[in-house]
Amino acid sequence: MEPLEFVSVLEASIQLWKNQGKKGIWIKLPIEHANLIESAVKQGFWYHHAEPKYLMLVNWLPGGSHTLPANATHRVGIGAFVMNKKREILVVQEKGGKLKGTGFWKIPTGVVEEGEDICTAAVREVKEETGVDTEFIEVLAFRQSHKAYFEKSDLFFVCLSRPLSSAIQMQETEIEAAQWMSCEEYAATPFVKKHELAKYIVDICLARIDGKYPGFSAVPTTSDFNKDKSVMYLDTKALYNK
Amino acid sequence: MEPLEFVSVLEASIQLWKNQGKKGIWIKLPIEHANLIESAVKQGFWYHHAEPKYLMLVNWLPGGSHTLPANATHRVGIGAFVMNKKREILVVQEKGGKLKGTGFWKIPTGVVEEGEDICTAAVREVKEETGVDTEFIEVLAFRQSHKAYFEKSDLFFVCLSRPLSSAIQMQETEIEAAQWMSCEEYAATPFVKKHELAKYIVDICLARIDGKYPGFSAVPTTSDFNKDKSVMYLDTKALYNK
Repeated sequence: MEPLEFVSVLEASIQLWKNQGKKGIWIKLPIEHANLIESAVKQGFWYHHAEPKYLMLVNWLPGGSHTLPANATHRVGIGAFVMNKKREILVVQEKGGKLKGTGFWKIPTGVVEEGEDICTAAVREVKEETGVDTEFIEVLAFRQSHKAYFEKSDLFFVCLSRPLSSAIQMQETEIEAAQWMSCEEYAATPFVKKHELAKYIVDICLARIDGKYPGFSAVPTTSDFNKDKSVMYLDTKALYNK
Repeated sequence: MEPLEFVSVLEASIQLWKNQGKKGIWIKLPIEHANLIESAVKQGFWYHHAEPKYLMLVNWLPGGSHTLPANATHRVGIGAFVMNKKREILVVQEKGGKLKGTGFWKIPTGVVEEGEDICTAAVREVKEETGVDTEFIEVLAFRQSHKAYFEKSDLFFVCLSRPLSSAIQMQETEIEAAQWMSCEEYAATPFVKKHELAKYIVDICLARIDGKYPGFSAVPTTSDFNKDKSVMYLDTKALYNK
């Protein structure tokens, strides 16, 4: 469709929608129709959100303040604390990012992908970065930061996982080094001593392993939004005395 | 700038950036320049994200799979469980949404705004909906759901708050009714009996109030991303034996 034709259809439609008492109007424009965006903006539409292949525009016909739902505001990340029976922690050095070239050891971390469960992401990231199979046990803490990326916020979940294998097969593209390190040695590294979150992670995870700290385990539940399964994270031991 | 001029500048710039070995290229186009989007798309750019007033386009000059950071994936919401010393819970009926006209009582809930802390949102939403002042105590559980809005995911945090006032001043636009209801009466409502999340919330919060369930309290910490304060949610009592 050409912009002139689009404007004519859009103007007529807006008049119709106004007469019908409609308020919020959404236009999802595939990237192939980028030529029509300017016309929609001239008709009062603004941007709601965008994904690689489309732009979602929105208009509030009554004018004034709207009650349209907000766009996504948070990126979600995980860190996986994996300790074996010899009290060795699985740690990596990253090839990129802020820690590049510092020689700092850290637990495997990563971003939760679209539609992925936190407990699944924890297992996936460890496998990808180190080749080690793990089982998710609990979320032990989380941190909310603001203005992390593009003014968006970040939620970082500290996960405890149990190793199911021990051989390390490093991801060459993102990881500089990976190894099992004794928890005493790791707790004494400069990174953990200086970095507040890393220190918290070690303290919390060791307390949990020693049975002194309760975490939230993952329980399947139903979603309010659709029939998909959701996951509830709560202290099931405390709630059910088991 | 007109599209023809923009294309000419962009083409020359891309050649320069390629020669310089640059990989990821970002263009933040204010909505006033919607006329330039089509030209950028024709030069290989795609959409990364959008906010009401701008569109962020991105290009990966080497081609192939990129390592650009992902867009925000989650909306974050809170529910605030507020109980007074008479073991009455602060509950509301919503004017809009899925529960409109059902007469169902629920705890105040809402969306965490951009840049807002979870603990702050819990206090704000209760104040807005009911006029009651509260103090955030702990996060007791959370739930992750997918495809909640626009294919994005949702993280919902169950917060426990302590009331600092009791008089109810209802928000007329969003709330149909608000009251203090005895926890026995609330636990016996059809909504709580049928609705899995509501049932969890009551069980968890009553266990917490009776001292049988540990939650995560909010502790200021530093962000990895900038000098802003972040908030860490963890069981401080278990970690510090206090």
